[in-house]
Amino acid sequence: MKFCVDTNEKNSWYIGTNDYGSKMINKFETVMFQGNGYMGMRAVAEEKQLHEQRDMFISGTFDAFPNEVTELPNLPDLINLEIKVDGQPLCLKDGYVENYHKSLNLKNGELTRTFDWIINNKAVHFNYRRFISMYDKHLFVSQVEVSSAQDELNVQLSSGIDGRQSNDESQHLMEGDKRLYDGQYIQMQAETQQSHIDFVFNVRHKIYVDEVLLSDKPYINMSRRQIFGNYNVDLQAGQTLTFIKYANVYTSIDQDADPNKLTDDSVAALKRASLSNYNESLQKSDRVWNHNIWQKNYVQIDSEDEKPQVAINFARYQLAANTPLDPRMNIGAKGITGEGYKGHTFWDTEIFMLPYYTFTMPDVAKNLLTYRYLGLQGAHKKAQGNNYQGAQFPWEAADPTDGETAPLWGSADIVTGKPMKIWSGFIEQHVTSDIVIAIMDYLHATGDQVFADDMGYEIILDAAKFWSSRLEYNEEQDVYEINDVIGPDEYKEHADNNAFTNYTAQWCIQKAIKVYNLIKEENPELYLKLSNKLNLETTYESWINQVNRIYVPQPNIEGVIPEDDQYLSLKNVDVSKFQVNDQISTIFKTYNLSQINQMQITKQADVLLLIYLFENMFDDNIKQSNWNYYEPRTTHDSSLSQSIHSILASDLGLNDEAYKFYEMSCETDLGIHIGKAIRGLHMAACGGLWNMTVEGFGGVRIDNGKLRIEPHLPASWNSLKYQINWQGSTVRVGIDGEKMFVQVIGDGIEFVSYGREYQVPANGSLEIELPVEETVTD
Amino acid sequence: MKFCVDTNEKNSWYIGTNDYGSKMINKFETVMFQGNGYMGMRAVAEEKQLHEQRDMFISGTFDAFPNEVTELPNLPDLINLEIKVDGQPLCLKDGYVENYHKSLNLKNGELTRTFDWIINNKAVHFNYRRFISMYDKHLFVSQVEVSSAQDELNVQLSSGIDGRQSNDESQHLMEGDKRLYDGQYIQMQAETQQSHIDFVFNVRHKIYVDEVLLSDKPYINMSRRQIFGNYNVDLQAGQTLTFIKYANVYTSIDQDADPNKLTDDSVAALKRASLSNYNESLQKSDRVWNHNIWQKNYVQIDSEDEKPQVAINFARYQLAANTPLDPRMNIGAKGITGEGYKGHTFWDTEIFMLPYYTFTMPDVAKNLLTYRYLGLQGAHKKAQGNNYQGAQFPWEAADPTDGETAPLWGSADIVTGKPMKIWSGFIEQHVTSDIVIAIMDYLHATGDQVFADDMGYEIILDAAKFWSSRLEYNEEQDVYEINDVIGPDEYKEHADNNAFTNYTAQWCIQKAIKVYNLIKEENPELYLKLSNKLNLETTYESWINQVNRIYVPQPNIEGVIPEDDQYLSLKNVDVSKFQVNDQISTIFKTYNLSQINQMQITKQADVLLLIYLFENMFDDNIKQSNWNYYEPRTTHDSSLSQSIHSILASDLGLNDEAYKFYEMSCETDLGIHIGKAIRGLHMAACGGLWNMTVEGFGGVRIDNGKLRIEPHLPASWNSLKYQINWQGSTVRVGIDGEKMFVQVIGDGIEFVSYGREYQVPANGSLEIELPVEETVTD
Repeated sequence: MKFCVDTNEKNSWYIGTNDYGSKMINKFETVMFQGNGYMGMRAVAEEKQLHEQRDMFISGTFDAFPNEVTELPNLPDLINLEIKVDGQPLCLKDGYVENYHKSLNLKNGELTRTFDWIINNKAVHFNYRRFISMYDKHLFVSQVEVSSAQDELNVQLSSGIDGRQSNDESQHLMEGDKRLYDGQYIQMQAETQQSHIDFVFNVRHKIYVDEVLLSDKPYINMSRRQIFGNYNVDLQAGQTLTFIKYANVYTSIDQDADPNKLTDDSVAALKRASLSNYNESLQKSDRVWNHNIWQKNYVQIDSEDEKPQVAINFARYQLAANTPLDPRMNIGAKGITGEGYKGHTFWDTEIFMLPYYTFTMPDVAKNLLTYRYLGLQGAHKKAQGNNYQGAQFPWEAADPTDGETAPLWGSADIVTGKPMKIWSGFIEQHVTSDIVIAIMDYLHATGDQVFADDMGYEIILDAAKFWSSRLEYNEEQDVYEINDVIGPDEYKEHADNNAFTNYTAQWCIQKAIKVYNLIKEENPELYLKLSNKLNLETTYESWINQVNRIYVPQPNIEGVIPEDDQYLSLKNVDVSKFQVNDQISTIFKTYNLSQINQMQITKQADVLLLIYLFENMFDDNIKQSNWNYYEPRTTHDSSLSQSIHSILASDLGLNDEAYKFYEMSCETDLGIHIGKAIRGLHMAACGGLWNMTVEGFGGVRIDNGKLRIEPHLPASWNSLKYQINWQGSTVRVGIDGEKMFVQVIGDGIEFVSYGREYQVPANGSLEIELPVEETVTD
Repeated sequence: MKFCVDTNEKNSWYIGTNDYGSKMINKFETVMFQGNGYMGMRAVAEEKQLHEQRDMFISGTFDAFPNEVTELPNLPDLINLEIKVDGQPLCLKDGYVENYHKSLNLKNGELTRTFDWIINNKAVHFNYRRFISMYDKHLFVSQVEVSSAQDELNVQLSSGIDGRQSNDESQHLMEGDKRLYDGQYIQMQAETQQSHIDFVFNVRHKIYVDEVLLSDKPYINMSRRQIFGNYNVDLQAGQTLTFIKYANVYTSIDQDADPNKLTDDSVAALKRASLSNYNESLQKSDRVWNHNIWQKNYVQIDSEDEKPQVAINFARYQLAANTPLDPRMNIGAKGITGEGYKGHTFWDTEIFMLPYYTFTMPDVAKNLLTYRYLGLQGAHKKAQGNNYQGAQFPWEAADPTDGETAPLWGSADIVTGKPMKIWSGFIEQHVTSDIVIAIMDYLHATGDQVFADDMGYEIILDAAKFWSSRLEYNEEQDVYEINDVIGPDEYKEHADNNAFTNYTAQWCIQKAIKVYNLIKEENPELYLKLSNKLNLETTYESWINQVNRIYVPQPNIEGVIPEDDQYLSLKNVDVSKFQVNDQISTIFKTYNLSQINQMQITKQADVLLLIYLFENMFDDNIKQSNWNYYEPRTTHDSSLSQSIHSILASDLGLNDEAYKFYEMSCETDLGIHIGKAIRGLHMAACGGLWNMTVEGFGGVRIDNGKLRIEPHLPASWNSLKYQINWQGSTVRVGIDGEKMFVQVIGDGIEFVSYGREYQVPANGSLEIELPVEETVTD
């Protein structure tokens, strides 16, 4: 495993680098991203750099630039700080740089950057630190220390709010007033063009020489979309200048703010915040990280290599930094780490990230699912627009009420020269099933009957209503088909009867039938309400009529489930040369999409994803046959592919394969290839990292509604310890090569392991001998 | 005189520099601006650089970003070309740079940049050239040659259309289709948000190795607002790669294009244009520069110092590059050289630039005045909005029908912290007089009766109608006053009876009375038309009633005309320390605007401007008294100040003073101070340069409708030759210390010089002995 960042044997919460060259600039910005779920910033330098991608986002503040789909606006920059030493602007390409080091503390999100800048024969030491608070979600604090042991320095600093930010130059914000309070609090107001969300940004500075606070008010300069405070300090040799920047952001959709008093209240909040110094502010945030995150999702890997532990820390850090805690919002495919996918939410949340939250922070999982409940209106809109019924969830979701937000048109076709239609928003329909899958898992893992009654059952019924209207009756064969879709394998743009889509559609209807019968019997009041709302009687009749005649592709004589009607008859090609992990989209240098459409090439787990999600439907021979058939035909040119393959390989006892895909997945963001680093992280890969660790190697799965724990520890790991939540109890699991130790805090639980059922009493524990695994090595 | 650019004794059409450091980057971008009046580009490097200001504008394509006033959109960039040598991106901050030289040919607008880049032990020679065509106004052509004498090179080039441009991050353009034609013509379409102007940008490349055309089609990559062609070439030592980029732009408001066929027609045009190689294309453009510009405005200075000749060449070059030839458009205060003043037109055109056009290219002057005629609708709108009548011309003008486009709010007041109102658009009213002044000059110089009848007279009458409604009757003193205005001196924000405003208002009404009587008598048809349109009978009565009772401040006992009612009673301070030419707005570091409002401090020629424009109204003693009084109280903190002072000093025989202000004015843009270089050139200073040279030193003036030529040659100049147009004839004037030679091509002319009247017969000439001047030196 090769990482782009340095790690530290003694501190698995550390990622860092001594490299300040321009090639990796965007990669480090992405990987060292800072956020608290509400607000997020890429790890750009304080001073402007060529080819940087300076992004700050606030979750959920979607806006549409004219003629474009909605996206998260890139907000005015608060990080900016331009320093001149003896009149020379700090630029790492000028003079010489020594002892450069930049690192991110994954445990509390503090980013530091230190170096000596040798300029005009003076050596100047810089020490930058900054964090986004987990204690006060609106707050960003940064500090720089400047000193020279040998020389006098004149230091000029310019820092403030720089609104010259945009999304690839699409500007969402209309400029509002720029204000100054008490001569030192600077404020910028702004409003989104189309969604009319108000923003208020505030900054104040404190400046010290050798810990003595200077009382000078800044010289303020303002211009279009800019307001800065300017300072000029003379330092003697050996003196240290400490400059602290306190900044905050409030919006009119904040749950914790009065939209009519944003300007005053936000200044008052910043006044209070700036009473604490940098370290005090950081400590408050640090405590919240510990209490809200680390105490809930403990994972400990004992291995010679520290990178697996760094990777799981990184994944959990990034998930915490990118997950909004407001149910009107969800996790973007790239979180709030970059402009890629416009901050939109995909099935990535339900299939790749929700297992983590469902098992460790069910309250967060509930928020994320509530987002889909709030999205029913948009899902109805989408269904109606396509002449379907029920809830057809959008392929890309932003504000939940918006419905589909996938772009309609992409780049020009190289052959025709004309823009190509983007089909995902129209025919990539399995997301509606994926949401039901996540809800069922959540209900099993938590037993949250309140959520089931309030929201969960309704979503399931409404989703099944969509599928029912979506089915196409094939009179000749008396079956219901689903034609012209994109399945998980996005290389096949107009597939008929994609196995994943058809199986999950049928399963949704089966679940809806169960829910219908359950509530009719056990909760007549709820039944009545939903029956009226969803016209359940008629819908139920359709389900019953359709459910057993839905065409679900069966394994062929070799045990292979056809990915779709066409796939198995397509041309075979050697895919191995495109299975590279260090570049993306290499296949498109050889073939275009319509050519790939005619070949047995799969982008990512499709049939294998079905097998992972519904393992009980298929026996081990079928699983192995499909693995043998599809994996060699898969380019894995999607960050969603590796984790599924790793877990399935664990299940199949292919331990080396499992670890190979695990390593590939770890390298999705942390690896040395640059990829689309400028566009942001792969949040699904972060979720996948936890899934591979806890579901794959740790063996945790929900099996017919029951907890199952069947670990497959990698050969290089001495032990694995993790903590999950099962129906309200905390379950701590420790695994080494031979034994598994299960401890429960809270009510007793039941679980299954290798065919045996176990019970752990309330606040009790249990030790199990693990079966000796056959080691299948290459 | 110190210039930021190098000049060349032997070639006064040359400005250049060996400096590629970052401090002057924006200054050189501005000074070496390229344009053809239709299209303009700042002289940024092909490769992106930190702190660059990359701007391209098309005249007249105004658009308003929500909540902002209209401005010229900064358009997708066509200059871009990123080169990698052996995988290393060209960046002048990496490796070493030798023999760097960048220069602009003022005669044909060609910009060149050459250097050797030493990287990874290879020396690579680069030679860039580019121009905007004067032959085909839509066309931009650039070329780069890359070679290494000693080493093999791999060269990767990426070039295309980069729409990631904006105005300080306000984005005007909605993205349209990106297209590809014949695999090598790349196209980007766009449309302004509010004004709905369509743009089409096209690019194609040709690539040669040692003059052999490579036939490879580019690898195309597209993303948001971007479309690029990519090339990869291996060069042997000694081989030269030549890369030519042809680009064009069309808009839906082009007079020479069919708005419904822009996409196809523009590609067809680029196909035709790309049949010529770089040099052929340049020659076509070169010929048009010669024929349309240089043959019409000849100015030759014989002096030891080459800088005066460079300065006048620079001024004429920039005027040609920034003046649209479409009467719906005008010259912005910063032309199309930067985002300053948003491309808006001010009185700068009429008072500072029109003399040049009226005297050298009357057809251009007519276009510029026609713009004001087309602006009558907007001027009516503005008058009505303020409860006035007639045509109140906007302080800032964009699309002529828009009326006032001055912004309403500026930066926050440092004291109150609240945004300050910008008063110019409300009370800086003298622009309406300035337009009438320019029209009268144009009519005198050209005798263009068609313009007078079609537009000129109507503007004069309508302007006087405004002034009549604007006057405030002071019953006590039985006079008409004009209170609460900003005069030319913008330090005084709410002045009463500003001398310049009151005198010119009265003069406008006097002119209108004359026009009224003239057309009533000589052109009854026109009279009838305008009488109906403007309700002239009633208006005329008001004029007659008001005109002699308008309060025009008279000289006091010392001969000083009070700038306004308050000025002479304000506090006196020492202004000399703020009279610096190397920084702007220095006074605001000592005083704020309300303090300055209470002091006898003047920003720029105000009473002295009145005296310059209406020299016959005041005798020499009054002129001298006001010079003595106001000049020491003037900070000259406006680029409009120096040229007026220089000309007036010439008139007063203060030759050293005249030359001092001349030099200061030359340094406005060409000088070494950085100023607001990022925001663009001072077009009025370019006009002022011609005015100082031809009106001041050359002595040309319109005196009671007659041509007057009374030169005052600077001591350091051996001779001055220039050419003007007088009533359709070309007049060539040559001046040395003792004699003046006047040659006429065309009909004979009359002129006055030092109290004598002269006649030059058709196609004849005349030599006059000049009076010996008293030399007043310090």
